[in-house]
Amino acid sequence: MNAVVIKEVGPRDGLQNEKENIPTAIKAEFIAALRKSGLKYIEITSFVRADRIAQLADATELVALLKERGLWDHPESYSALVPNRRGLDQALEAGLQEIAVFTAASDAFTQKNTNCTIEESLQRIAEIMSVAIPAGVRVRGYISTVVECPYIGKIKPEQVRSVALPLLEMGVYEISLGETIGVAVPDEIAALLDCLLEDIPAHRLAGHYHDTRGTALLNVFRSLQYGLTTFDSSAGGLGGCPYAPGAAGNLATEALVYALERSGYRTGVSLPDLREATGKVQGFVSRPLQMI
Amino acid sequence: MNAVVIKEVGPRDGLQNEKENIPTAIKAEFIAALRKSGLKYIEITSFVRADRIAQLADATELVALLKERGLWDHPESYSALVPNRRGLDQALEAGLQEIAVFTAASDAFTQKNTNCTIEESLQRIAEIMSVAIPAGVRVRGYISTVVECPYIGKIKPEQVRSVALPLLEMGVYEISLGETIGVAVPDEIAALLDCLLEDIPAHRLAGHYHDTRGTALLNVFRSLQYGLTTFDSSAGGLGGCPYAPGAAGNLATEALVYALERSGYRTGVSLPDLREATGKVQGFVSRPLQMI
Repeated sequence: MNAVVIKEVGPRDGLQNEKENIPTAIKAEFIAALRKSGLKYIEITSFVRADRIAQLADATELVALLKERGLWDHPESYSALVPNRRGLDQALEAGLQEIAVFTAASDAFTQKNTNCTIEESLQRIAEIMSVAIPAGVRVRGYISTVVECPYIGKIKPEQVRSVALPLLEMGVYEISLGETIGVAVPDEIAALLDCLLEDIPAHRLAGHYHDTRGTALLNVFRSLQYGLTTFDSSAGGLGGCPYAPGAAGNLATEALVYALERSGYRTGVSLPDLREATGKVQGFVSRPLQMI
Repeated sequence: MNAVVIKEVGPRDGLQNEKENIPTAIKAEFIAALRKSGLKYIEITSFVRADRIAQLADATELVALLKERGLWDHPESYSALVPNRRGLDQALEAGLQEIAVFTAASDAFTQKNTNCTIEESLQRIAEIMSVAIPAGVRVRGYISTVVECPYIGKIKPEQVRSVALPLLEMGVYEISLGETIGVAVPDEIAALLDCLLEDIPAHRLAGHYHDTRGTALLNVFRSLQYGLTTFDSSAGGLGGCPYAPGAAGNLATEALVYALERSGYRTGVSLPDLREATGKVQGFVSRPLQMI
């Protein structure tokens, strides 16, 4: 009844832009503390090329350390971002049971971020799926820039749907709608969901709303009215938006848990324990995190 | 059509807890820039005893400086907080055409803050009104702790109504509902408004919601559904909540303007100009302000 699933992206989306190298042992402690707080889904890292995201170059070592410390007893709680077949192979070898793939609703954005069109990114994902699904790995799909692209401006809901449908057909179990630059207000989320829900059941959609301008919770609450029950957030609001230096990026898991719980939703997450988790990495990031 | 009035409390509520003394000239520049951004109502200071709030001890000098600089051409745009008859006399002498008075929905809160019961604070306000109204001064009334009091916990909506009604009877033209400690979620604001709107028209109520836990905009948007069209905020989110050190206190005017304008409401406020105003005081406060 009124349960909301929070998918924690702090260790991956949150840390990936941090300049200071965070020791693998600290990441493992952070993840352990996030688990202890009650979070049942944590995106722990990304299997990307080390020269692309130096902070996450220790993906394989991190998984090994989690196993060594007895923190791999519920591997279904962990996911990792995988950009291509090579990343998938590493993830499979590490023992991941779930991965996340990503594309965007804007060609300009995929070009800038991954040097390919949306169509080409979908082909890459199809290649990943052709191995992941037979291997019994669950795959979640991110679509970035679902409301606005930093390069070409507003995105039509139909454009998002035209990317979401093939992803679902390929076997992605859930689409995470990335409001990447944190500009959207509830009416825009409503227009998007009005369009998507014509073809896609609400339980296959998740909201990943950035809080750059303070509107993320507004968008979460509007989405709840549409039947969405899964939202992404980042402990302490870890993770800046590269397009708005210094500004908040990810919605803080603390703020999400607080507003939901006080509104009668059940997240299963303990706020004091969550703050303790965020405290593990506060010393390694430059700005004060939002432990509310 | 869809117009929303923003009442800017940064120069008073925002600055009052700042330790570093801000020069009167900087305050005047700040107020001038706020006016230039399009804000039509600014609470510029408080006529309190200097030993109570040192930061605002220059109230009379500030008004004199605004006049000297030709910034007093629309005095109806300015208001000042007045705690008692002595403060009122100073405000009248300075030439204020509007003042704000305050009480709370919790006796524990008025005792702690002003060393009197709610009933005694209403008597003080009645004394102020008996002079202000014949003098042609408009009076706005704050009620603090409308959802929860930091000393005694949750406050019943009926309790807020029992304070609001006598204030309106005395001639207060508008009640600003202070969610002082920033804990409320939309359902709580809805329950409060369900009760108040039985007896009070929406245009006599304003929302003054603190953003300590990130829920202020949620509460503003729920209030809009109830027909409220006036909200208080503070440039840059100036002003911490004394009960949550380091946490955000006031809702940032920038965030309010952004979310409202993008949602189709008209505030009449220019965001770039507002950021410039906030920039005038950023150098005098310790934490980074929210210019979004």
